Amino acid sequence: MDKVQIWGETLRLIVELSATAAFALAGVIEAARKRLDAVGVCVVGFLTAFGGGTLRDLLLDQRPFFWVQHVEMLWGVLGLCVLAMAFLRHRHFELTERAIQVPDALGLGLFAATGTHQALLLDLPGIVAVLMGVITGVFGGVLRDVVCNQIPAAFHGHRPYTVCAFAGGWVYVGLWQVAAPGWVALLACVGVTAGLRWLALWRDWELPAWKP
Amino acid sequence: MDKVQIWGETLRLIVELSATAAFALAGVIEAARKRLDAVGVCVVGFLTAFGGGTLRDLLLDQRPFFWVQHVEMLWGVLGLCVLAMAFLRHRHFELTERAIQVPDALGLGLFAATGTHQALLLDLPGIVAVLMGVITGVFGGVLRDVVCNQIPAAFHGHRPYTVCAFAGGWVYVGLWQVAAPGWVALLACVGVTAGLRWLALWRDWELPAWKP
Amino acid sequence: MDKVQIWGETLRLIVELSATAAFALAGVIEAARKRLDAVGVCVVGFLTAFGGGTLRDLLLDQRPFFWVQHVEMLWGVLGLCVLAMAFLRHRHFELTERAIQVPDALGLGLFAATGTHQALLLDLPGIVAVLMGVITGVFGGVLRDVVCNQIPAAFHGHRPYTVCAFAGGWVYVGLWQVAAPGWVALLACVGVTAGLRWLALWRDWELPAWKP
Repeated sequence: MDKVQIWGETLRLIVELSATAAFALAGVIEAARKRLDAVGVCVVGFLTAFGGGTLRDLLLDQRPFFWVQHVEMLWGVLGLCVLAMAFLRHRHFELTERAIQVPDALGLGLFAATGTHQALLLDLPGIVAVLMGVITGVFGGVLRDVVCNQIPAAFHGHRPYTVCAFAGGWVYVGLWQVAAPGWVALLACVGVTAGLRWLALWRDWELPAWKP
Repeated sequence: MDKVQIWGETLRLIVELSATAAFALAGVIEAARKRLDAVGVCVVGFLTAFGGGTLRDLLLDQRPFFWVQHVEMLWGVLGLCVLAMAFLRHRHFELTERAIQVPDALGLGLFAATGTHQALLLDLPGIVAVLMGVITGVFGGVLRDVVCNQIPAAFHGHRPYTVCAFAGGWVYVGLWQVAAPGWVALLACVGVTAGLRWLALWRDWELPAWKP
Repeated sequence: MDKVQIWGETLRLIVELSATAAFALAGVIEAARKRLDAVGVCVVGFLTAFGGGTLRDLLLDQRPFFWVQHVEMLWGVLGLCVLAMAFLRHRHFELTERAIQVPDALGLGLFAATGTHQALLLDLPGIVAVLMGVITGVFGGVLRDVVCNQIPAAFHGHRPYTVCAFAGGWVYVGLWQVAAPGWVALLACVGVTAGLRWLALWRDWELPAWKP
C-alpha cells in the first residue's frame, strides 16, 4: 500500500472507533437517565454501539458479525461503559452529548456507507442497499430507546437524522453505479450525511410536521 | 395457464397488495397518534407492512426477503405514506380504520396461509407451521406497537385477531396433509381466518377474560 | 451408556424442563399483571420461555431451532399457559414467584452453559461465547418486558441476575480451554451461576448503584 492509502485506512479506522464510542456513550447516558443498574448501562451501551450493524448482518445473512471478527471492540465498549460509570456525572451529560455530536454525525455517514456497500456487494437493488445503510446507522439508537421504554428519538425528534443517512446512502448508490472509486463514494456519502446533519443542527432545521 | 388460474393469480395479487396497504395505513395512523415525525411515520408504516413477513423469513432462514424480490412494494408503501401525510387528517382516522378492516382481515388470512405454506414446504411440523403463519400475519402490528411504545393491540385488545389466524393456519395444515390442491387450502384458510375475524367484529366477540 | 450417564442425562432434562416451565410462568404472571388477554398471556409465555434460545440460534445462524426439534415443548408451554389461566389467581402470584426462583436460577445456569457451549463449538472467541450464554439465559425475560412495555427487569432490578450468568459463562469457557470433561464444565457453570444468584437473593446483594 502506498502512503495515501495507509493514511486513508487510518483515518477511516479513527472515525469508526470514535463513532462506535460516541454511540456507546449515547446509550450509557440514556440508560443513566432511566436509572438502569450497572448491567443495564453496559447492555444498552452495547446495543447502541453494535445493534445497527448486527441487525444489518442478520438481515443480509452475513456471518461472522463484525464484533466477532474484532473482539477488541467488545472489550473497548465494555471498558468505556465502566469508565463512564466511574467518571461521568449528571452535570457532564449535556456537555458530553454536545461533544459526541461530531463523531456521531461522522459515524452515521460511515455506517450508512458501510451498510449500503455490503448490500451492493450482494447485488441488491438500490433502495434495499440504502435501507441497509440507514438500518446500520440508525437502529442501534432505536434498540436503545425500545429497551429504555421510550419512542425512538430517531422517529420522534423532528430533527433530521435518519433522512441524512438516507440521502448519503443514495449518493453512495449513485457513485457506485457510475463505477466511481470506492474512497470517493465513501467520502461523498460521509460528507453528505454528516454535512446535512450538521446543517440541521446548526440551522435548527426541523422535519416538516404532519399535523393530521 | 388457463383462464381460471390467471384469474386466481390476479385475485391473490389484489388481496396481497390491498392487505399490505391496509397494514401500512394502520401503522401510519398509529404513528400519527403518537406524534412521530415524518420519518417515524414512514418507518412505522414499513415495519407494520413488512415486519411480520420479514421476521418469518429470518426465522425460516429464507433469503432474499419478499420485499427484495418485489422492490416495487417498498416504493409503493413509501408513496402511500407520503400520500397519507398529504391527505389524511385526524377526522379521517376512524373512517379509514373502519375501511381497512376488510383488506386487513383478508390479509391476515392470506399472510397466515403464506407463512404456514412456507414452513410446510420446509417439512416443519404442523404447530411450527401454524406459528409461522401467525407470526407473518400478526407481528407487523406487534413491531409497530413496540416502536410506538405501547402494549401490542394483538395481545391486549380482547377482540379475537391472533386466534383467527391460528385457526386458519390449522385449516391449511389439515388440508395440506390430506393433499388437497393448493388453491383449496388457500381459500379455506383465508375464508376461515377472515370469516372468524368478521364474525368477531360483527358480534362483538371478546376473548374470555382472565381475571386472575 | 452406563448408569451414571443415564442418571446425568435425566437430571439435565429435568432441570431444562422445569426451567422452561419457570420462565413461561414468569411470563404468564407478568402478562396477567399488565392485563393482557388470553392470547397475549400465551404469547408472552412463549416469548419468555423460548425467546433467549431463539435469539441465540438466530445470531449463531443455527437451524433448526430447539423448539422445532422438540415440538412437544411448544405443546407443553401452551398447556402450561392454559392451566395457569385456569387455576392461577392473584393471591398465588407471590408464592409462585418465590417457588420458581429455584428452577429459574438453575435454568439460568443451564441456559448460560448451553449458549456458551454452542458458541465454543463454532470456534467463537471466549467473550462472544459468554455473551451468547448470557443472551440465552436473559433475553427471554427482556423480550417479555419489551412486549409488556416496561424497562427489562434484568437491567433495572439492581439485583444481580445477568452478572451471575456472565460469571458462570466464564467458568465454562475456562474449563473448556483446559479441556475438562463436558459434565464438569456444565456442573461448574450451573453451580456458579445458580449459587451466585441464590447468594444474591439470600444476602440481599445489590449491584453497585451508579448515581451519575
